[in-house]
Order: sequence, then C-alpha cells, then structure tokens
Amino acid sequence: MVKFASRMDLLTGSEIRELLKLAGKPGIISFAGGMPAMEMFPVEAMRKAANEVMDQMGAQAMQYSSTEGYLPLREIIAERMEAKQGVKTDADHILITSGSQMGLDYSARVFLDKGDVVLLEEPSYLGAINAFKACEPKFVTIPTDEDGMIIDELKKAIAENENIKFCYVIPDFQNPSGKEWSLERRKEFMEVMNENEIPVIEDNPYGELRYEGENMPALKSLDTKGLVVFLGTFSKILAPGYRLGWVCAEGEILKKYNFMAQAAALQASTEAQLVVSKFIDMFDLDEHVNTIKDCYRKRRDVMVQTMEREFPPEAKFTHPNGGLFAWVELPDYINTNEMAKICMERNVAYVPGDGFFPDEGHNNCIRLNYSCMSEEKIEKGMTILGQVMKEEIAKHKG
Amino acid sequence: MVKFASRMDLLTGSEIRELLKLAGKPGIISFAGGMPAMEMFPVEAMRKAANEVMDQMGAQAMQYSSTEGYLPLREIIAERMEAKQGVKTDADHILITSGSQMGLDYSARVFLDKGDVVLLEEPSYLGAINAFKACEPKFVTIPTDEDGMIIDELKKAIAENENIKFCYVIPDFQNPSGKEWSLERRKEFMEVMNENEIPVIEDNPYGELRYEGENMPALKSLDTKGLVVFLGTFSKILAPGYRLGWVCAEGEILKKYNFMAQAAALQASTEAQLVVSKFIDMFDLDEHVNTIKDCYRKRRDVMVQTMEREFPPEAKFTHPNGGLFAWVELPDYINTNEMAKICMERNVAYVPGDGFFPDEGHNNCIRLNYSCMSEEKIEKGMTILGQVMKEEIAKHKG
Repeated sequence: MVKFASRMDLLTGSEIRELLKLAGKPGIISFAGGMPAMEMFPVEAMRKAANEVMDQMGAQAMQYSSTEGYLPLREIIAERMEAKQGVKTDADHILITSGSQMGLDYSARVFLDKGDVVLLEEPSYLGAINAFKACEPKFVTIPTDEDGMIIDELKKAIAENENIKFCYVIPDFQNPSGKEWSLERRKEFMEVMNENEIPVIEDNPYGELRYEGENMPALKSLDTKGLVVFLGTFSKILAPGYRLGWVCAEGEILKKYNFMAQAAALQASTEAQLVVSKFIDMFDLDEHVNTIKDCYRKRRDVMVQTMEREFPPEAKFTHPNGGLFAWVELPDYINTNEMAKICMERNVAYVPGDGFFPDEGHNNCIRLNYSCMSEEKIEKGMTILGQVMKEEIAKHKG
Repeated sequence: MVKFASRMDLLTGSEIRELLKLAGKPGIISFAGGMPAMEMFPVEAMRKAANEVMDQMGAQAMQYSSTEGYLPLREIIAERMEAKQGVKTDADHILITSGSQMGLDYSARVFLDKGDVVLLEEPSYLGAINAFKACEPKFVTIPTDEDGMIIDELKKAIAENENIKFCYVIPDFQNPSGKEWSLERRKEFMEVMNENEIPVIEDNPYGELRYEGENMPALKSLDTKGLVVFLGTFSKILAPGYRLGWVCAEGEILKKYNFMAQAAALQASTEAQLVVSKFIDMFDLDEHVNTIKDCYRKRRDVMVQTMEREFPPEAKFTHPNGGLFAWVELPDYINTNEMAKICMERNVAYVPGDGFFPDEGHNNCIRLNYSCMSEEKIEKGMTILGQVMKEEIAKHKG
C-alpha cells in the first residue's frame, strides 16, 4: 500500500493558490494575489538583454553552472544590498536560489528537525508557514505592535521554549500586514537574538518598494554574530517569472544552505541569471524600481482613501508605507472565509486572513493587495468590499 | 548556540561538484562531468524562440504562473512521452519542476520519514542518493546484472525490510553504469512492484539518447496500478541551463507532489517554460536530438575503442548503448580516489565510483562521461588513463 511521509498530512495546498484560480476569471476585481503589475514589466529591455546574452554567451547560458550562482550576478546583489539595505557583504556570501520561496524551504531544512521551535510574527507570511510545515516544527507566534515584534513577548517565548532553531521575520512592509519595524525595535530585537544566539531569517522581498520616508537598515546590517540569513528576490523589483532570489549569510550557515541547494536543486537557471545580470548592466534597475513605486504608491493611496471613505468604523486597517499589501481586522463575529464567498458573487476577491496564522482561528482578517489592479478598479472593488462589510455587520447587529 | 537539523550531518556537498571545479581548469581533459556538449546547443534557434515569446507574450513570461506548469508545455511533454516512451498520459498528469533534481527531492519528501527504506540499484545516481539523504532514509541496494535489477535479490530485500517507501531506478542508460534494462526484466520488475504495491521512481534523463537498437517502453508504460512516478527532463535533449524537468504521476501521488512543489518552490520559471515551448513549436526537437545523438555516438565509439585498446585486462568496463556514461571496475586493490589525484597531475579527470553507492567502500570504480569532449581529446585522455591504470596495477603486483 502506498504510504506518504508524515509531513504530507500538513501540506494541503495553498488556499491562496486555489482562490487565485477563481480570482483570475475575467471580470473579477482581485485583491487576492501578491503579483507585481504586469503592465510595468520592462519587456522590451529584457528582450534586448536576452538577445545580448544569446549573441555573446548563448551556449554558456544554456549549460549547467555552479550551485552558488553566477559570479557577476552575486556581485551585483552584494553591491545592491549595501546601497539599499546598508548590508556590507560580498559575492562570496550570496547563494542564488530559484526564487525566494526556495530560500524559505532551505531555511526550514537547514535548521529544523521535527518538533523544533520556529518563532514568527503574528500574523506571518502564509508561504513561509507552508514551507516550514514541511519540516513539522512547532510554531510559536509573537504578537506585534506598530513598531514590530513586541520584545517582552519575544523574551517570554524564548524563556518558555526549548529547541528554538530560528526566528522568522519580515521587517519591511510585511506580507500580510504591510507594517514596517522601527529602527529602535530592530536594534532591540537583534540584541535579544545575539544574546540568545538564535538565527534570524530576515525575509525582505519588499524593502525597496518604499513610498514614504527613508530606507531602514536591514537586520542583516545589525548582525554582529553572523546569525542573520537575509532572503532577497528579484520578483518584486523586476519580475517573478525568472524565479531568481538569493540568500545572504555567513560561515557555516551559508555552507549548509549551499549543501542543501546542491541536494535539492543543483542550481538556479543559468539563463535567467545571465539575462537578469545583463539587464542590470544595460539598463537602470533603480529607475525601473522608481517607476514601479510611483505606480504602486498611487494605487495604495486609492486603496487607503477608499477604505477610509467606504469601510465601516468597525474595520481596522493598516496604512502601509511600502510593499504590496494592506491588512484589515474586522470584529470577531465576522468570518472572512464566509464573506469571501459573498464578495466573489459580487466579483471581488481577497485572501482571508486565517492562512497567515499557523494555528486555528483568526477568521476575522483580510489581506488586500493593491499592486496589480488599476486605480479605478481598486476604488470600485474596495467600495463593494466596504458595502459587503457593512451588510455583514448589520446582519449581526440584527 | 546555532544548531542545524540532523539531516545536515549527511549532506556534505557533492564530491563531483568539488572535482568539477578542478576539472574545469584549462588544459584538463575531463571525463568527470555529466554535461551535454555546449557546442551542440541550438543557440540561434533558442534566441529566435525567446524573441517570439518576448514579442508575443513578454509580460506573461515575466509573471508568476501556476505550480503545475504552463499548459502548452505540459501538452507537449505528454505527447512526447507517448511517442518516445510509450506512456499514454495527458497534460493533467504532468507537473513541471525546476530541473529533474527537484523531482528527486520531491520524491524523497513526499514519501520518506526518517528511517524509511529506499530500494535502489547498485550502483545508483549520486545526485539522487544525495537528494534522498536529506530525508534520512535507510538505503537498501539491489545488485544488478546485464538486464537490470536482479529480481530474486529484489524479492529478498522486500521480504527482509519493512517500511519500504519506494524503489528508485534508472532503466535507460543508467548514470553511472550506462546500462539499460531488458524488456523482460522491466516486466518482471513491474510485476513485483504491483504485487507489493511499492511506488517506483523511474528516472529517465537519457532514454532518448539511444545509439543502438529500438526504444524500450518506460516502466511507466507498464504501470497498471498508478505506482510509477516518471521523472523527465529537457537537460539532456535540449539544455540544462533553463532548469526544466517534469514529473508524470497519477492520482493522490501527483497531488502530493504538487503540494510539495507549492511549499518548496511555488513554480518553475515561467519564462523558461514559454521559451522552451516556443522552441518546440518553431523548430524540430527530434531533429536536434538526432544531431546530438550522432555526435555522442561517435564519442562513445572512440571512448569504447580506446578502452579496448589501452586499458589493462584487469579493467572491466561497460559498452553503453546510449546516454552519457561508461563505468569501469578495477581490481579491489586499486583505490580510484587516490588514482584520481595521479590522473589530475596528468591533466585527466574522472569521478571516482564510491559516491554512487550509499554505503562505504566501493573504491575500485570509475564513472566516465563522453558527451562533452572532442573525439581527439577522448582518445588522448583515455590513453593516459589506461597508462595510469597499468602503472598502478604494476605497482601492486610489485
């Protein structure tokens, strides 16, 4: 009889991916995805870069290459990490992955035996929770406030749990909440991590997509003991279709990630690495990021303004300073999974919030994406969503 | 203190990859890799295909896409599997992976809890052993003869072991041995697997690279109970740099692979999938495969002829009918790890055979690759290798 591994009992497919199938139908206004705006992709520039690669080094692009990744791309990434996140590093500390999801997967597998403890923000990224689940850990969530993870709660969790293998955080415009950690909180957090020698998985897909204020230093830039594993990606600043992300880490930890990558995947796409490197050589990625930011900033503004105008006073929502997401908390008596069906009937889709918590419950939250809908559709869809919320609240109040 | 998962004690990096770093130095004649011939890549055709994609559907190529993979590519693969391997299937039974290595990785993770048993040929593919190790199984190797796995030994292993989760085999021009299974053996094998309901991981990267005789039906074509998971790849028939492989499986098994892929990687590169699909639409992949086969057949001929002429009588070697590898067994008193250093001093590289066995020992074997060296270099390198063998044997005989 065919028997599967016990981890497979925990992996039942992403609800987001199922929902996205419905949300992709024509006529649906979808706040459900986490996709970049397709119309902003630099298609013509990438075509030119691809032609340059095929003309100059086509056979190399089609051949196997090293597990750690294409050296010129690792150099570009190292420079960029210093410029954007204040992380002093070099190509030798970068491992290219087939998208940042693989960085999450490797993180789980490098550190976690069954039953080991993972600390993470409450809520946290659904895709990370799913990747970690494959190693059957115990999840311990730490409450957050406007400045990030609450340090006293973190200390309490550390005191109460053994076998803590790492703490997973998204300090810059978190998925799903859109929040960013304050500088002070980053420092306090790293003090606690250093003191307890707990590895930190710092997931940073959105750090460059800031619409207000100055860039914050990454936790990795405050890492004095080589404990922080920084996960970066080209998915949100360039395009996700090439599946290119990276790990920045130190010493023995990086070595383990490299061994894991060899066993699991051999290497990321040579062709994608060469084409993206060439694009960055030939064109101005910063300028491209600025163009995206201008677009997303406007969409965020429309979303926030419409929430302020159309949502009932019972709905609490974040005002993200960057990234792709806003987060809504409704009264406990609203079940956002049920409400999603009502919204879908009115051609509006979102992701219910419960998937962003490793435990049961939390059925009163919503994640909203604003990056891949026009301003007009955002206004229309959010108005409908506000209307449904009001109706649901009115039903309860009877 | 930083503590890693117990699996990391088993993953220490591939010796092949370390050796390949040395073997890549200028002037080295290397039989160590498993790489396709770079000069055979259809660079100009792929450039055209990439341009078509970027012109017609550039933004789509750069966006996220589904976990299961791009439908037209899955349709192409399903048709190809029927034409080449006699497997009747359809797009719904195909999952695209970022290279076949990920199919191996998923196989381990879908089926294996720590301590579960994996059956495999002796010797078997080093990269598969490494991928499986990440799930800490018990390996049980089954001796092989000229027709494939020895059925009585297989039955004995099944009788003696509990918790057998799958049997991993490479029936077509195996890596490392170059052997292919006879039709009769394939049928007997599938009877045993069906009777015992043991899943089969059929790894088939080389099936289309046949230099003699008629194509053999895949085990998957003899699969009456949905037990066979077929792993295919574009790496050897087109190019490895795009990282495109696939899983062909049934029902609940395929579903689990899909869940695993969602958790581990989200999806394979959209761009690579679209470009390879377009290449197959625009050009004749079969014709390309024929061109490669003509080249590799000649290189194999030179390798086998030079072995026959230059190797000492103590060296036993395979005469592969396809694929990329030949396998040499030397007397027990020769340590091929030590001999590799001597050969390297004379600018010849190969992979010592011990890595192709999950247990210790087996230090008297060599894997030789003939796909990525010119005929001239093969003759020269094999002559040097034969000379070193003779010297080492003479030393022993004193």
